[in-house]
Amino acid sequence: MRANSNFDRLEQSYLFSTVARKVAAFKQANPDVTVIKMGIGDVTQPLAPSIITALSQATKEMSQADTFRGYCDDAEGYEFLRAAVTDHYARLGADLGLDEVFISDGAKSDLGNILDIIESGSKILIPDPVYPAYVDTNVMNGNTILYSKGTIENGFAPLPDDSVDVDVVYICSPNNPTGAVYTAEGLAAWVAYALEHNALIIFDSAYEAFIREPGLPHTIYEIEGAEKCAIEISSFSKRAGFTGVRCGFTVVPRNLEVCESNLNAFWRRRQNTKFNGVPYIVQRAAQAALSETGRKETAEQVDTYLRNAQIIGDAFDSMGIAYTGGRNAPYIWARCPKGMCSWDFFDLMLEKAHCVATPGVGFGSAGEGFVRFSAFGRTDDCKTAMERIQQMLEEEELI
Amino acid sequence: MRANSNFDRLEQSYLFSTVARKVAAFKQANPDVTVIKMGIGDVTQPLAPSIITALSQATKEMSQADTFRGYCDDAEGYEFLRAAVTDHYARLGADLGLDEVFISDGAKSDLGNILDIIESGSKILIPDPVYPAYVDTNVMNGNTILYSKGTIENGFAPLPDDSVDVDVVYICSPNNPTGAVYTAEGLAAWVAYALEHNALIIFDSAYEAFIREPGLPHTIYEIEGAEKCAIEISSFSKRAGFTGVRCGFTVVPRNLEVCESNLNAFWRRRQNTKFNGVPYIVQRAAQAALSETGRKETAEQVDTYLRNAQIIGDAFDSMGIAYTGGRNAPYIWARCPKGMCSWDFFDLMLEKAHCVATPGVGFGSAGEGFVRFSAFGRTDDCKTAMERIQQMLEEEELI
Repeated sequence: MRANSNFDRLEQSYLFSTVARKVAAFKQANPDVTVIKMGIGDVTQPLAPSIITALSQATKEMSQADTFRGYCDDAEGYEFLRAAVTDHYARLGADLGLDEVFISDGAKSDLGNILDIIESGSKILIPDPVYPAYVDTNVMNGNTILYSKGTIENGFAPLPDDSVDVDVVYICSPNNPTGAVYTAEGLAAWVAYALEHNALIIFDSAYEAFIREPGLPHTIYEIEGAEKCAIEISSFSKRAGFTGVRCGFTVVPRNLEVCESNLNAFWRRRQNTKFNGVPYIVQRAAQAALSETGRKETAEQVDTYLRNAQIIGDAFDSMGIAYTGGRNAPYIWARCPKGMCSWDFFDLMLEKAHCVATPGVGFGSAGEGFVRFSAFGRTDDCKTAMERIQQMLEEEELI
Repeated sequence: MRANSNFDRLEQSYLFSTVARKVAAFKQANPDVTVIKMGIGDVTQPLAPSIITALSQATKEMSQADTFRGYCDDAEGYEFLRAAVTDHYARLGADLGLDEVFISDGAKSDLGNILDIIESGSKILIPDPVYPAYVDTNVMNGNTILYSKGTIENGFAPLPDDSVDVDVVYICSPNNPTGAVYTAEGLAAWVAYALEHNALIIFDSAYEAFIREPGLPHTIYEIEGAEKCAIEISSFSKRAGFTGVRCGFTVVPRNLEVCESNLNAFWRRRQNTKFNGVPYIVQRAAQAALSETGRKETAEQVDTYLRNAQIIGDAFDSMGIAYTGGRNAPYIWARCPKGMCSWDFFDLMLEKAHCVATPGVGFGSAGEGFVRFSAFGRTDDCKTAMERIQQMLEEEELI
């Protein structure tokens, strides 16, 4: 038998393993030094009280025969949670039907699995730099990948090139790794492109909860026409600290006009054939995260991370280091000083400031010359790290 | 853009929706009649105490910053659970490495997703009758499907035909829907076939915990050579009542010889690209299910279901109705009397005995003339149902 030979075309990603190896080597050589890690995009605050209560209550239900739950009737999730998600969208101004919402075990799963319903060999437009899984999943499916380049000039929010014809467009806003957020005008340009070219937009809104600036769109469905051309994939991971709880939601509109097939029906069939739904207790936890109390509690957690981001951004402002993100996103995407490359600046920060960020080149070639700082750590650590980095840059005469 | 046109080749499955519609119509016409449902393959007993304790403890950990868990480092699961799974296999006599075990959110997901690493267009041998997802997932992936027919003569445990050359062979033992269990000799014949033809065996052992007869293999890895040709996909769903908790495990040996590519590495890459692991609290629950106390508690639950199966099987024995399963499986696969077809017997049972079973033809054309009874219900209901069925068959002069 033969394996899927597309896997042979995957590039090995050494980004995070190389970071981990370098940090471990430094720590071994410098056991008394405290290294501050600002590289990891994982939450650090515990689950909010209302979510813990929901998990405990659902666990109790599973212990009694009369309240025990087995299979969920539909792989797309319990109606109580799909209704909570449509209510969430209604608060954002988007009117969705219960049959357009699919509960997932996280955005990463659906971002990969969605390709099951798209023809192999399609032409795919992916931003550069970006979350590496977009590229890898498309390589696995035998698709042709084109890139839309993010630059400091376009604020890492590239706009469509009408002379390029593709089948699928990925957009991630707020963006990982650059923290860039599309304006309504920017997204409207992509929707117009999609409708003109019969292209499907896959919109990744995993970091939506970090948008606080009025007027910036929280969902692609705020844009007129998006319901005819866009699938949105989102997550409770960053909104509610669910990285270890595993729940997300995907919207596949009923009336997508860019495809002759019914993608809503195809995705429903895919999910009911290759998935058996999210744990009942997790669906109750997610429902709690979207309750009034849960929204208040989790917004306070996001506030904390945004304050960290502000500390990092303000420090770079005072140093004269250019960056994107940090205002409506948990990432700060900073240009390395004096044209340094990503890994050189990484090494310097580790050696001299004892801080870890993620080399931007690991997110695509357009990320060369940048580093990504995560605001998901402790506030004290953020302050200390920025002091150390400023001192180092001054000592090295890099600012 | 174009959708995956293989989805257009999927047959609509009306099995369970038609069953539900017929039952609802009968109930509406006969509101005072109690209908006993023996069609559904879902557990009914609540989670065992040790599993509830583990869920509660893990939930508490998630509420505190110093014990909170975010992303699992590896999509394949925490080492504590992979070690519990290798210990489980060691008890069955199979020696597996930690890097050969992958924790999943259930057998259904991995049975579908495993096709991601297999070349599209492969020749696939699937038993008939069988769990319908095998066929549908292979249609979605553009594979060519051949069937190995189960019959009452071969005990619904068909053996390989050396003149047929395929790339992948599916085996489900104990079988859903027939309850048939392969002997070691039967599985050895399939392993010999796979090694001879360079075919990959996908072995579904979701019902393994129901095997009580000494000598029957609990895992394909009890068979010499299986580690060179077989992937095993299993689940906590039926073993520990996890149908609503969602956890399973998949074994992809390091040294599969039937493929030139390293399928272990391919599957690891697939899972780390398109999956972010099973919830931490669920992994702790699964660990508890495999603990000494958990094994004792869940074995008692399985015993209850097996007693139900015995009641159903004994009743058919006394009626002279031929069947497979019911001894080492939660399903009884009964031949309809006097050559009746599946749906006619279903209708008769519903109308006259007020019992619901699943028409066998819904599991494939070789299932015509059979019905599947599930033993996952209440013991009293099983007894009442069999009395009603016997009375009906006598009145209708079908036995």
